[in-house]
Amino acid sequence: VTARKAVTIGLIGLGVIGSGVAKIFKEKHQRLNSQANIPIILKRVADLDSNKKDSPFIDPAIFTIDANAILEDPEIDIVVELIGGENPAKEFIIKALSRGKHVVTANKEVLSKYGPELLTLAQEHNVSLLYEASVGGGIPLIAPLKRNLQINDISAIYTIINGTTNYILTKMENEGLEFPAALQEAQDLGYAEANPYSDIEGLDAAYKISILATIAFHTDIRFQDVYHEGISRTAPQDFRYARELGYAIKLLAIAKKAGDSVDVRVHPALIPEDTLLAKVDGVFNAVQVEGDLSDKVIFYGRGAGSAPTANVVVADIVHIARNISTGTVEVSEIPSSKTTAIKPIDQLESRYYIRMTISDQAGVLAQITRVLGEHSISISAAIQKEAYIKEKAAEIVITTHPAVESSVQEAIQEIEALAIVKQIGNLIRVEDLNR
Amino acid sequence: VTARKAVTIGLIGLGVIGSGVAKIFKEKHQRLNSQANIPIILKRVADLDSNKKDSPFIDPAIFTIDANAILEDPEIDIVVELIGGENPAKEFIIKALSRGKHVVTANKEVLSKYGPELLTLAQEHNVSLLYEASVGGGIPLIAPLKRNLQINDISAIYTIINGTTNYILTKMENEGLEFPAALQEAQDLGYAEANPYSDIEGLDAAYKISILATIAFHTDIRFQDVYHEGISRTAPQDFRYARELGYAIKLLAIAKKAGDSVDVRVHPALIPEDTLLAKVDGVFNAVQVEGDLSDKVIFYGRGAGSAPTANVVVADIVHIARNISTGTVEVSEIPSSKTTAIKPIDQLESRYYIRMTISDQAGVLAQITRVLGEHSISISAAIQKEAYIKEKAAEIVITTHPAVESSVQEAIQEIEALAIVKQIGNLIRVEDLNR
Repeated sequence: VTARKAVTIGLIGLGVIGSGVAKIFKEKHQRLNSQANIPIILKRVADLDSNKKDSPFIDPAIFTIDANAILEDPEIDIVVELIGGENPAKEFIIKALSRGKHVVTANKEVLSKYGPELLTLAQEHNVSLLYEASVGGGIPLIAPLKRNLQINDISAIYTIINGTTNYILTKMENEGLEFPAALQEAQDLGYAEANPYSDIEGLDAAYKISILATIAFHTDIRFQDVYHEGISRTAPQDFRYARELGYAIKLLAIAKKAGDSVDVRVHPALIPEDTLLAKVDGVFNAVQVEGDLSDKVIFYGRGAGSAPTANVVVADIVHIARNISTGTVEVSEIPSSKTTAIKPIDQLESRYYIRMTISDQAGVLAQITRVLGEHSISISAAIQKEAYIKEKAAEIVITTHPAVESSVQEAIQEIEALAIVKQIGNLIRVEDLNR
Repeated sequence: VTARKAVTIGLIGLGVIGSGVAKIFKEKHQRLNSQANIPIILKRVADLDSNKKDSPFIDPAIFTIDANAILEDPEIDIVVELIGGENPAKEFIIKALSRGKHVVTANKEVLSKYGPELLTLAQEHNVSLLYEASVGGGIPLIAPLKRNLQINDISAIYTIINGTTNYILTKMENEGLEFPAALQEAQDLGYAEANPYSDIEGLDAAYKISILATIAFHTDIRFQDVYHEGISRTAPQDFRYARELGYAIKLLAIAKKAGDSVDVRVHPALIPEDTLLAKVDGVFNAVQVEGDLSDKVIFYGRGAGSAPTANVVVADIVHIARNISTGTVEVSEIPSSKTTAIKPIDQLESRYYIRMTISDQAGVLAQITRVLGEHSISISAAIQKEAYIKEKAAEIVITTHPAVESSVQEAIQEIEALAIVKQIGNLIRVEDLNR
């Protein structure tokens, strides 16, 4: 081990998180150096947008539009990749690791799709690949899972891990807004992107839960293994019915041991209103981990935003710098490839909430109950609201006891075909959590 | 660095936590070895009670009643101190560190009273002293504070960190029990000790908040710096009045930046009922950390219990073993000695809840308001309940706007001396938290 005088950083991507990182380097440089026990130097910052040269947080002299000026600089020890998205971020990470540089990233998509290969590459080159900021923004999650909870046999992780959808659902619940209006408001406030597809359809949450599940279950779980379903079908009355039944509605990302397999999925869910997760509102995130030793542990905080996310990126940088100063490398565990099967969604056993519009006439509930019964689905609660007189229609809501997803889907198709049923309004899974 | 073949552990104290540690060693030995990247051997277990030799979790051959058989064994790398209390635990820790052994402990009292000296001793001998289990039982707190949140300027830590008192307060709130009955029930269930003094008078929480405050503010804060007040004065009607005002009552342990000084205290507090801390019930603990970068982060989980606490003890052991396997030592930051002043409680500025019994006659509230006004205390809300006819007495509750503690204490004395005031029932600080 040769004594090192400083650790040198190259930052690629000066967007929301990257600017936050540059700001911390500018404003808290002494703190970083003292926490790392070695000076940390931000040597170069790259962004395709040449206007970023004028960022108030960097010296223009260190700016470049060419990421290779960082990736190919032999003096740079740690590459911080903050451009997001799959390409060219993945190539940048591969190039950095292959040249023996440590990498810190917030890139959930790349980690979710290629994590095990990249961790293996890091191991081969004896460098660290850290990605705390990829999940849960400013909430410490990955480090405590690896450092404090790794002796547990984890049975389940229940998460609210997408701030955009949680903001929209909170608005809908509190103000009775329809989904499009709540989405528009989230966009106006900058909580949702112009193209909100990845957030509202659950892809973002699917990336994140696959990363957490991989660590928790020590097995290779990817984005493509995660069933995902978004929130666009949720209507204001779903929140009212849910509240009447004692539930809140949240977009949950779940990873759960189910016998020898793992059940990993993202979808809206009814959760009991007296649980802590039900109280997680607005853009906040929360992750509930359940282990045989620790029992229930919850981490809560800001799942996005410049300063909170940049904070954990910089903490990863400081961690690596401290290791460099002592001549060590923390090599990540490589998840074993598919030692655990992924349970297909149609084998899921869950409780369900079904909302439908029916003809307001005698014997309707009996017909629906019969179809459910034929698929071994029993009813736990039912709510029927006053008829819409004009249309001679009424809305009913049914919750079921635990049933198999494939049976429920078949039953729903048959119910929808009944003459007395006008429309299936929504089907939401019910998660009773561990209270 | 010589290559090591194994890491050897000596465990002192086979009580609730110690047995949990031995059980994990017995049942999850392979997991420990693989997480540490080196075999970990539990070589010796000491307890003064020779009956513990028959513990189902240890081989009787490794049992001893003599702690020195561990402290003086040159083969033992890590001493795990789990006897609790100040003496002889402190001497054991000093002896272990002085002989170049790493120490893992759950001992909040020793850390709170002697932490900086012990950390300095560890540094002098180039060994680690880890104590994650000393605060918040099974909740990862100290490691994430040091690893993920250390770049923050932390402004406040609000905690519910004593499970016994939180259980008692939850019982009182939910079932309308008087304090002695709720305490008895906690004792019957094993949630409170036969001698509950340290828990119910806030000493236990004071130990813990001083440890967290030391880490958060990088300054030397001890048990004796912490103002502490217990819960025994709390009455069932306080919960009813609090609810009417929109608050819950919790025993809070708080550490807060207040200008150039730090305000560290333990006392019952009214907190808004729509905050997450207000939802923390029973034996669960929660720690809310507020930083300039991270904003609000909350850690929640079991603050006590054999398996959860043993889990974080073992995680500390594994962490040191992994470092030994790579030839490194993680040396803790030594808090600077009193760079930050401790703000005396009588200078506290807070809102207050005052409950008192008065003569039911005209002009009473005017007299009380006059006394408060003379001390620059203004009223934010007042509740007066129906008179107890027989005694011609009524109960009134007042909450104040922010006022200085010393003024409030003086005003209370003057109010108590008024002829029309029969009794001051309770005085509780109001913490509006950061929502």
